[in-house]
Amino acid sequence: MTRPLRLDPDRLFPADPGTRAIARTLYEKIAGLPIISPHGHTDPSWFASDAPFTDAANLLIVPDHYVLRMLMSQGIGLDALGVPTVDGSPTETDPRAIWSLFAANYHLFRGTPSRMWLDWVFAEVFGLDVRLDAATADHYFDVIGAALQTDAFRPRALFERFNIEAIATTESPLDPLAHHAAIRNSGWSGRVITAYRPDPVVDPEAANFAANVARFGQTAGTDTATFSGYLAAHRFHRARFREAGATSTDHGHPSAATADLSFDDAAALYDRVLAGSTPADAELFRAQMLTEMARMAIDDGMVMQLHPGVLRNHNPEVLARFGRDKGADIPLAGEFVRSLKPLLDRFGNDPRLTLILFTLDEDVYSRELAPLAGHYPALRLGPPWWFHDSPEGMRRFRERATETGGFYNTVGFNDDTRAFLSIPARHDVARRMDCTWLAQLVAEGRLEIDEAHEVARALAYDLAKAAYKL
Amino acid sequence: MTRPLRLDPDRLFPADPGTRAIARTLYEKIAGLPIISPHGHTDPSWFASDAPFTDAANLLIVPDHYVLRMLMSQGIGLDALGVPTVDGSPTETDPRAIWSLFAANYHLFRGTPSRMWLDWVFAEVFGLDVRLDAATADHYFDVIGAALQTDAFRPRALFERFNIEAIATTESPLDPLAHHAAIRNSGWSGRVITAYRPDPVVDPEAANFAANVARFGQTAGTDTATFSGYLAAHRFHRARFREAGATSTDHGHPSAATADLSFDDAAALYDRVLAGSTPADAELFRAQMLTEMARMAIDDGMVMQLHPGVLRNHNPEVLARFGRDKGADIPLAGEFVRSLKPLLDRFGNDPRLTLILFTLDEDVYSRELAPLAGHYPALRLGPPWWFHDSPEGMRRFRERATETGGFYNTVGFNDDTRAFLSIPARHDVARRMDCTWLAQLVAEGRLEIDEAHEVARALAYDLAKAAYKL
Amino acid sequence: MTRPLRLDPDRLFPADPGTRAIARTLYEKIAGLPIISPHGHTDPSWFASDAPFTDAANLLIVPDHYVLRMLMSQGIGLDALGVPTVDGSPTETDPRAIWSLFAANYHLFRGTPSRMWLDWVFAEVFGLDVRLDAATADHYFDVIGAALQTDAFRPRALFERFNIEAIATTESPLDPLAHHAAIRNSGWSGRVITAYRPDPVVDPEAANFAANVARFGQTAGTDTATFSGYLAAHRFHRARFREAGATSTDHGHPSAATADLSFDDAAALYDRVLAGSTPADAELFRAQMLTEMARMAIDDGMVMQLHPGVLRNHNPEVLARFGRDKGADIPLAGEFVRSLKPLLDRFGNDPRLTLILFTLDEDVYSRELAPLAGHYPALRLGPPWWFHDSPEGMRRFRERATETGGFYNTVGFNDDTRAFLSIPARHDVARRMDCTWLAQLVAEGRLEIDEAHEVARALAYDLAKAAYKL
Repeated sequence: MTRPLRLDPDRLFPADPGTRAIARTLYEKIAGLPIISPHGHTDPSWFASDAPFTDAANLLIVPDHYVLRMLMSQGIGLDALGVPTVDGSPTETDPRAIWSLFAANYHLFRGTPSRMWLDWVFAEVFGLDVRLDAATADHYFDVIGAALQTDAFRPRALFERFNIEAIATTESPLDPLAHHAAIRNSGWSGRVITAYRPDPVVDPEAANFAANVARFGQTAGTDTATFSGYLAAHRFHRARFREAGATSTDHGHPSAATADLSFDDAAALYDRVLAGSTPADAELFRAQMLTEMARMAIDDGMVMQLHPGVLRNHNPEVLARFGRDKGADIPLAGEFVRSLKPLLDRFGNDPRLTLILFTLDEDVYSRELAPLAGHYPALRLGPPWWFHDSPEGMRRFRERATETGGFYNTVGFNDDTRAFLSIPARHDVARRMDCTWLAQLVAEGRLEIDEAHEVARALAYDLAKAAYKL
Repeated sequence: MTRPLRLDPDRLFPADPGTRAIARTLYEKIAGLPIISPHGHTDPSWFASDAPFTDAANLLIVPDHYVLRMLMSQGIGLDALGVPTVDGSPTETDPRAIWSLFAANYHLFRGTPSRMWLDWVFAEVFGLDVRLDAATADHYFDVIGAALQTDAFRPRALFERFNIEAIATTESPLDPLAHHAAIRNSGWSGRVITAYRPDPVVDPEAANFAANVARFGQTAGTDTATFSGYLAAHRFHRARFREAGATSTDHGHPSAATADLSFDDAAALYDRVLAGSTPADAELFRAQMLTEMARMAIDDGMVMQLHPGVLRNHNPEVLARFGRDKGADIPLAGEFVRSLKPLLDRFGNDPRLTLILFTLDEDVYSRELAPLAGHYPALRLGPPWWFHDSPEGMRRFRERATETGGFYNTVGFNDDTRAFLSIPARHDVARRMDCTWLAQLVAEGRLEIDEAHEVARALAYDLAKAAYKL
Repeated sequence: MTRPLRLDPDRLFPADPGTRAIARTLYEKIAGLPIISPHGHTDPSWFASDAPFTDAANLLIVPDHYVLRMLMSQGIGLDALGVPTVDGSPTETDPRAIWSLFAANYHLFRGTPSRMWLDWVFAEVFGLDVRLDAATADHYFDVIGAALQTDAFRPRALFERFNIEAIATTESPLDPLAHHAAIRNSGWSGRVITAYRPDPVVDPEAANFAANVARFGQTAGTDTATFSGYLAAHRFHRARFREAGATSTDHGHPSAATADLSFDDAAALYDRVLAGSTPADAELFRAQMLTEMARMAIDDGMVMQLHPGVLRNHNPEVLARFGRDKGADIPLAGEFVRSLKPLLDRFGNDPRLTLILFTLDEDVYSRELAPLAGHYPALRLGPPWWFHDSPEGMRRFRERATETGGFYNTVGFNDDTRAFLSIPARHDVARRMDCTWLAQLVAEGRLEIDEAHEVARALAYDLAKAAYKL
């Protein structure tokens, strides 16, 4: 017996009828605003080639680490889910089998944001009207597969249908940005820009660090044997990225540590880490490089993003067999107050710098991030990130950050995803949850309705556009 | 003037009428399910002897450290509450006087779960219909005392009346499990099983550790002078506990630290801690033993529970005079991501292992525990524990753990109590709060009602039964 | 186009109509209770001289670090806001210009408690009925300025109009308390008392510590070259403060560390820190002095307050140019369980001691503070502090602290402010939020309405009066 799939038009609004009515009013005015996606991980080759996606499993399951991790946690192997192996050893290759396995376990996602995003994709993108389960798996697979073969479901058509005004991908300085060039040269008007993520040449503990740095210098035409040459290479590649539309840099460090060494001390540290670093030197070098990036950001106007506090690849067996980004990254406790001080002592009062902070440790919202962002001109708060990009995560963010940081030290929403089809769903969840929060403020006499309308629009559109200079 | 005692049939349901109606519908279907109590501290001698409880004070006040701590915090001495002393020095012995003191201070419990549990016991178990206060203290004492002398209030009768399908007590490997044998041999059908809690022979800082280990080996017939013999003694006693119905082990360590030493290193460490350990060695030995217990669990199928992060006996004066478990244990900040890694590196991907994690540091729900349990097949999340076994604690658990961990990586409810009469009340609070949470998801369009019914039953009954293999 | 300013009479009450009605009923009974303000930073010279306040900017903007920090975070310099400089270099001196700048940026405060407090001041104190923005800035400045020139707006008249029963200011032992003497000698009946804040002579890292200690001894007539003489000076000044009405001491330490050294060790430590201390010695001395203060508190009956966990003056540029208390203090992670143990081991069970704990790390409410205060007779929980003195902060405090600590281990509300005009607004927010919390308990069947009325009154008035012995 199939069960209907329907998206509640009032989903995520407060249950109280009076507050719900306010939320609905707020939402109606902003639901149709274009999507600004200033930070994410979509693949620029999709938009360069505009090739059709192949099938439901390879589009929606195999690359989605949120989905993989939940299934794995209940004993379903990544093999059975068709995740490619590092050594090329075989895993499931039949997309219909993968899809069926997923469908039979779809109940595991109850109460998770993945469920909300996927149901939106099923209903709104593919027009499905029965719920996914073992019995409807084949129907789903066929409907989605057929749609993907049509022009309306190719990447550029979806980009336009999703009303995306601008989207940023994230690339390493070692990337030639050929796809971005191809997009620009294609005559297509979609705005797909890059972001400068220098971790492979900034983190001495990254795989092949020294080789990366050498290549980084070669492509820049600078001599990275010296710290000066290394910094010059950054300036070169930052300029190259800006030419490809980049307005931001992104830094995925293990911690928020910053340092402000003298040039000579930094140069000596650079020599040491190039030769093969200790953990302490690696941490100090990453810390120093955040301050160097801030210095360059003041010069070239790029916005900095800091995403710290993840222990990557917690599961060595998964890493060895399936590689990175398979759902095995785990958050760590965060500390920003002392960590950021060296950088802030140097540049925190300079309004030309915008440093957007993210965290996976929600405790620091009210204790550290809101107090810091509510004081320093250079700081802004990024939206709830990764595990917290969810209705309850968004609720906690507003509840904990607003009273000290206000709305205007936040920067709207980031979808931060490689799951392209879910992007509108993610922005929609954020817009609904923000309207829910604003409606509660209005219902409790803490904000006037005309102000709530202004703030709702700012959170959905204006703040992201301004903060990221888009 | 006495005031009526009445339990609101809609208690703990959301105030919003629409959401409340959903919660009520969900609850009606699960309110009558049998109680699975897979982790707790009731005394098996109650069920072995089936002797009547003596009086209200000795049943409900003297052994309840939640009650003792609150009264003590307001300056009421444990002497006056009749708590027995370690040295046998006298304390209050008149149960009516103890009860009167408690009754006169019952207002202190407003807003606490003890109040909800006790009111349930008063109204539902004893049929009292006036509120407890100084004026009604004698009435209460008399009504409860009279009831306790009747057969209907003896332990086995209450067990049956409470609709308990299975209950686990917790014993040390040094315990002969004579009460459990007596229960089995009595012909009574109540399922009272034990759980293996080896802390006294695993924690080198436990009182009389070396003597405990020696006795542990003697009863097992193994030579605990060597690590091999010590491990063999664990295997012996685990088997003995399984014969007494145990399906689980329980570990109450100061931290969640685990280790994965080579056999030789572990054996050398064992030699050191047997001889009198340093704090660092003690911590490392406990850490190593969690991994050893996991290894054995994979062999014998017992489920592991880890309850870390309490500073026991924070109050030395209370410890010296009144002993352990008198309300002086205080939670500590928790860390699981790095602490569990050695054990998880070894066994985290093995679906034959079930390791159930508890915490008293609620911050780690969203930051560490849900991300870990939402990835590793071997991990599950225990319910809110101890200080957080309360309506708001349960609310926070679902709000913070569900979106990343889902429902199916949780294991239902544990009452974890020695307060036998409160067990139905505690499970009822959990069932109501889970229905409240599910009703909110339904009201906000995040879950369909038919799914909410399935999840409500799983949380109330199925998940505990499955996770604990009952 | 001006927009009306109106305070919703139901503001901060729950949106659900049934729960709102309960909250309103509870609030009506306590809204008019006198204000007990047992901890704050108003300037006693206001009440001594009763001189009129000058203008809106110098009354409401320049001294309010909540306001300054938010404006600064959005790039508005403290110069432009007329904050006086340490070196006397010029900043904006035209109060109307400062006010206009503030008014044009008033939208930044949406969703913050400053907005609620200020709107209350505008509407209730000054009778303004249009909202503040760039267009109404001059109107506001004129209306407020005119009112301030009238007798009804002088400090003592406002004190009486605000129905303040007692207010405590906070002074250093180096303060001669002349303003308090002037108030007492003036014949005015307003109760303005002091509190003993010995940080400048207790913290070896305080500016001019050794000179402070010398002066501290001179005014006491004791020889602070020895630890005995130093302790005697404390006893002298504590007695002097008690004569000026003080019932409490206050301690603003970087951490909650306490120590319980032998007299000889403490005396040797004192010698070292007087000579110029290391950070470790400074921390240990502060720690030891908390225990010394507790010992004296047991003797003289003064209530201790501990406000730990702030990194003061995080922004060196602001400190150098504008000095302390300009919105650059940032919270740190807190730890109380191990930190307080030495003091509690010594005095925690003594009901003659009252030690009121505050924190800026909300995580410790449920993990540490409520468990500690729910056990030790000497401990009480202060209200949500500073960044958390806000509707959501108050909600989190009750949600997290009540179930383990109860209501009666809390001490009512502290406004902790130097913003005199906002005091009634702050107490009103606390009263409304407490009624909201109590109404939710009543609506959810967790508390009876007659009990809620008793608790509401206790939280608004009785508990503060009792805990602070006022």
